[in-house]
Amino acid sequence: MKIARFSHNDGIRYGILDESEIVVLDGDPMFAGYQPTGERVPVADVALLAPVIPRSKVVCVGRNYHDHAAEFGNVAPEEPLLFLKPNTAVVGPGDSIVRPAISERTEFEGELVAVIGRIAKNVSAENALDYVFGYTIGNDVTARDLQRKDGQWTRGKGFDTFCPLGPIIETEFEAATARLETRVNGEVRQQAPLTDMIHSVADIIAYASAAFTLLPGDVIMTGTPAGVGEIVAGDSVEIEISGIGVLRNPVRDASPAA
Amino acid sequence: MKIARFSHNDGIRYGILDESEIVVLDGDPMFAGYQPTGERVPVADVALLAPVIPRSKVVCVGRNYHDHAAEFGNVAPEEPLLFLKPNTAVVGPGDSIVRPAISERTEFEGELVAVIGRIAKNVSAENALDYVFGYTIGNDVTARDLQRKDGQWTRGKGFDTFCPLGPIIETEFEAATARLETRVNGEVRQQAPLTDMIHSVADIIAYASAAFTLLPGDVIMTGTPAGVGEIVAGDSVEIEISGIGVLRNPVRDASPAA
Repeated sequence: MKIARFSHNDGIRYGILDESEIVVLDGDPMFAGYQPTGERVPVADVALLAPVIPRSKVVCVGRNYHDHAAEFGNVAPEEPLLFLKPNTAVVGPGDSIVRPAISERTEFEGELVAVIGRIAKNVSAENALDYVFGYTIGNDVTARDLQRKDGQWTRGKGFDTFCPLGPIIETEFEAATARLETRVNGEVRQQAPLTDMIHSVADIIAYASAAFTLLPGDVIMTGTPAGVGEIVAGDSVEIEISGIGVLRNPVRDASPAA
Repeated sequence: MKIARFSHNDGIRYGILDESEIVVLDGDPMFAGYQPTGERVPVADVALLAPVIPRSKVVCVGRNYHDHAAEFGNVAPEEPLLFLKPNTAVVGPGDSIVRPAISERTEFEGELVAVIGRIAKNVSAENALDYVFGYTIGNDVTARDLQRKDGQWTRGKGFDTFCPLGPIIETEFEAATARLETRVNGEVRQQAPLTDMIHSVADIIAYASAAFTLLPGDVIMTGTPAGVGEIVAGDSVEIEISGIGVLRNPVRDASPAA
């Protein structure tokens, strides 16, 4: 099932994507189950939102594809290299990525995102996927110069709008056969099977849950393959994962007043 | 005013500390204002909780006292060095700090904490303190070996229970004349005037708000002075800041099952 969160007639609703329509649900299915209201709305009439509200954590993994680690001259770490983005960075499909005036270089990073559906603490890799509600697509937008300058990645990866998520959550996703492709203005920039990941989704969840309790609505960004690069005002970034869809976001500069 | 959050008769309430009693309020004064219910309860009859629920961010600053930067052989950074702790790490006064089995060395770090009370984005240092609801005390507990091994500080500083906050929020705090003292089992380990901070609370808030929107309930941990050190099971850590109070937490090891 493809779970959408959307705004329609001034309200925010959840629903199940059914071709060109959305079957409207009574509340967030992560918490309220799948109770249809009986209403259906055309996808064309709604604005899709980030399909999950990260109430606590956006957990990210650095250098989780060999070719991406290599493109910056890094060796892939033996264990998942964890960092956090603030939940205030999350935006939805179609929302603008705003390049901060204080950075010289903003870059895209297309990623598979696991959405946690149940409280997870000290879970084993064997059981870890039982805690996943579904999968979506994320862009780990990065002010590359500030990331390098600071050493800690928090600020360079934490700006408002630096975590687009969407377009929907696929609850029956199969990473084993899926591919990720990122396009900027239609030109292919990243292309990889998700099996190129060094640490699997299950391994990352087990590892992260040994440190912090994962809560429903937490998201796990699983790292990006090679090909990351700069985005500038006017660009359109599309990240496609087969079986999930396309996350598309325009890019603009911060206004002088912001 | 000293704002307390506490549990009493199975309910969680807010109130104003008035010597040995608490004047009970009708809701969280950060959002609901100061409406007394008419009820007063003895402090001795309640369990104080973390005085704020960080719904979004625990923003921390590394190396913000010259003597602490020097004790690890680091130069103090020219700009605040930001990192995040997950909000799942927060515990209250009296709660146990749990040493993870996967770390060889857990350390305390006593810190002044500013509690954000209004949405803050791109605020100037001149106006930054207008966004502060009040001040409390925090312990930036750190698995020092994992912090060093990972490079990114997220995991080493992000374990559950690694962010004790409390005991109350002082809304009329004067950092200019206050001192911080940390004691382990009664022995003084850290002692510094808060004026030894390199980057002031106002500067940190202005700097952080240029990257991410600060939300009501976000907390800013302002760094620790020299004297950090190991804590082991059975220890009691007390962090005292004059004008706020004492944050006291026992230390235990993770149980084999956890």
